[in-house]
Amino acid sequence: MAPLGAEVKIDDAGNLRGFYAGADSSGPRLLLGSHLDTVPNAGAFDGILGVVLAIALLEGLKGNRLPFGIEVVGFSEEEGVRFGTPFIGSRALVGRFDKELLERQDFRGISVRQAIEDFGLNPRQLPRAAIGHDILGYVEFHIEQGPVLETMQRPLGIVETIAGQSRLEFLFRGRSNHAGTTPMHLRHDALAGAAEWITAVEVEAHKIPGLVATVGKIEAKPGATNVIAGEARLTLDVRHGLDEVRTRAVKELTRAADEIAKRRGLSVESNILLNQHAVAMDNFLIGEIAKAIRSAGCEPHRMVSGAGHDAMILAEKVPSAMIFLRTPGGISHDPAESVSVEDVAKALECGLHLFNQLAASSPYNKRTHRA
Amino acid sequence: MAPLGAEVKIDDAGNLRGFYAGADSSGPRLLLGSHLDTVPNAGAFDGILGVVLAIALLEGLKGNRLPFGIEVVGFSEEEGVRFGTPFIGSRALVGRFDKELLERQDFRGISVRQAIEDFGLNPRQLPRAAIGHDILGYVEFHIEQGPVLETMQRPLGIVETIAGQSRLEFLFRGRSNHAGTTPMHLRHDALAGAAEWITAVEVEAHKIPGLVATVGKIEAKPGATNVIAGEARLTLDVRHGLDEVRTRAVKELTRAADEIAKRRGLSVESNILLNQHAVAMDNFLIGEIAKAIRSAGCEPHRMVSGAGHDAMILAEKVPSAMIFLRTPGGISHDPAESVSVEDVAKALECGLHLFNQLAASSPYNKRTHRA
Repeated sequence: MAPLGAEVKIDDAGNLRGFYAGADSSGPRLLLGSHLDTVPNAGAFDGILGVVLAIALLEGLKGNRLPFGIEVVGFSEEEGVRFGTPFIGSRALVGRFDKELLERQDFRGISVRQAIEDFGLNPRQLPRAAIGHDILGYVEFHIEQGPVLETMQRPLGIVETIAGQSRLEFLFRGRSNHAGTTPMHLRHDALAGAAEWITAVEVEAHKIPGLVATVGKIEAKPGATNVIAGEARLTLDVRHGLDEVRTRAVKELTRAADEIAKRRGLSVESNILLNQHAVAMDNFLIGEIAKAIRSAGCEPHRMVSGAGHDAMILAEKVPSAMIFLRTPGGISHDPAESVSVEDVAKALECGLHLFNQLAASSPYNKRTHRA
Repeated sequence: MAPLGAEVKIDDAGNLRGFYAGADSSGPRLLLGSHLDTVPNAGAFDGILGVVLAIALLEGLKGNRLPFGIEVVGFSEEEGVRFGTPFIGSRALVGRFDKELLERQDFRGISVRQAIEDFGLNPRQLPRAAIGHDILGYVEFHIEQGPVLETMQRPLGIVETIAGQSRLEFLFRGRSNHAGTTPMHLRHDALAGAAEWITAVEVEAHKIPGLVATVGKIEAKPGATNVIAGEARLTLDVRHGLDEVRTRAVKELTRAADEIAKRRGLSVESNILLNQHAVAMDNFLIGEIAKAIRSAGCEPHRMVSGAGHDAMILAEKVPSAMIFLRTPGGISHDPAESVSVEDVAKALECGLHLFNQLAASSPYNKRTHRA
């Protein structure tokens, strides 16, 4: 970034930040970026593509200055692999980096606090990583990590909302019995009940546009070939862009579990592991991005992000938006993760159009704003 | 058994055997008994009740001699807990105790051969445990270990057949994907496919009288709350008294798995872990037992045994039969296993009636036979 004329630093939370000043160096700035880390055994594009695209956009400015500054952010520790808590870098930017988080340990017993010190930073100075009141907004390019844009044959998408999530655990209890001596009509098979419910979850999710509901984990006890399961424990993950739709679906699926259990002489209990509300992206930025994508010759697709992103954290403080790049096969977090050169070129084109549009519009154009 | 006038010994396979001679001490004999062992953390009746009942029946003869001798057998190692192979004692009686079996080891590395020596017997003399040509038949009293007789409110049942068993493993393969970013209609969820199939197994088994089909074990991979399962591995246990019904059901359930997988864009493969044919009990003995149960004031219920028993092994060589005693709650292999005093009294009454009936009928009555 330095050769492009940006002022580069590592902030007090370990985020890489490069500030490319606007025409008025003391003016407000637009944040642009994504995360530097990914998961183990991952691909080459998750996160880092959004950072490299931001830098390439600075390059695309060819030394020209906009009415606003641009700060590229390469966020640290977005995935939460090491300490089990995601979004550590972006939490620092919005000032949501609490003591509890500092004391979290990795599997070797090293705390976040210690890791920050080992990296050569001072945890007491963390608040200095927080953004001030001069931030116009945050825009993040990211691979979709899903199959939607590919299926629609569109290179770029706009995130309207980052979906809310509910995660629950369900436990069906029946009667463990001999698989040979217990006739079908005298069984209370916990796994058969759980299986019927998995199918009900799938049917219900298909009925509600935009809803995803997943049972990804299951365990039957005692878990022997010749023994009817007395217990089946399974998880449910439900996501939707609208919190009330998700909440209603969770209620309906819990009711379905109760109904199935009752009819089969089983019991069922559920408990909530996570309840995270949906986060809306900024309407003004969404509209401008849609225009920029069209100017790049593509048809934008407005969509919900089923996964969480740094933009979800930034949105607590500043208008935020995300642009998704088509992900071949929807494959991500895997060495086969990829993106096409043509789609990246379209993303760059879109980014430059966006700069020009914002430069011409209040409050991004300080002169206009003052006028 | 000795005070009752029986000649008691431990045979060369470690079975406890007591011979109560008939009126003609060189005449043929009826075997009566069950197994001495059970599983860990079991109840007080599995197996041993059949041995104690046989001894009580000798007592019930009050010193009288029948036209045939009675040999009580307390079988060793029926469950297969220690060496992973069931029916070790009864295999010795029918001469099916091969070298491979002698070399099997327990979890400490002690072989069957070594265990026999440690018990003070000589493994080379094992063939001496085999029965000769003077055996009229084998009758075994055993707890049902299932809920059928209790549901029908009948104290005693007659086993017509010991069910054949098929055990298989099924592996559904789909595509592991992000639970948040993959819309419902673009999924290839291996666990959802497996769940639909578990329900199909249950529906199919309900359609076929006497069939039991059980999925008792399941594993989804990668097995995370927020990841669509790419693999689901599960077992199938199918049992029926008629081999052709069982074989047809296994074929139909395999076809159902194929159909479900195909429709969902999954693949499925299955492999057979066990195929054991059904074993019929002896018709003459079944008829006599039914008569004896009626004489004891009960209505006999003719049934299939879903579990394997020593009688299944003995049936290879001699006419064999089993009488089941009602098992409260169907609970077995558990400390709560029980049997009612009244049902045991009915079983004893039935046994004495059976002796009298057999004494009056050829070939059990040597005098009649000679005449």
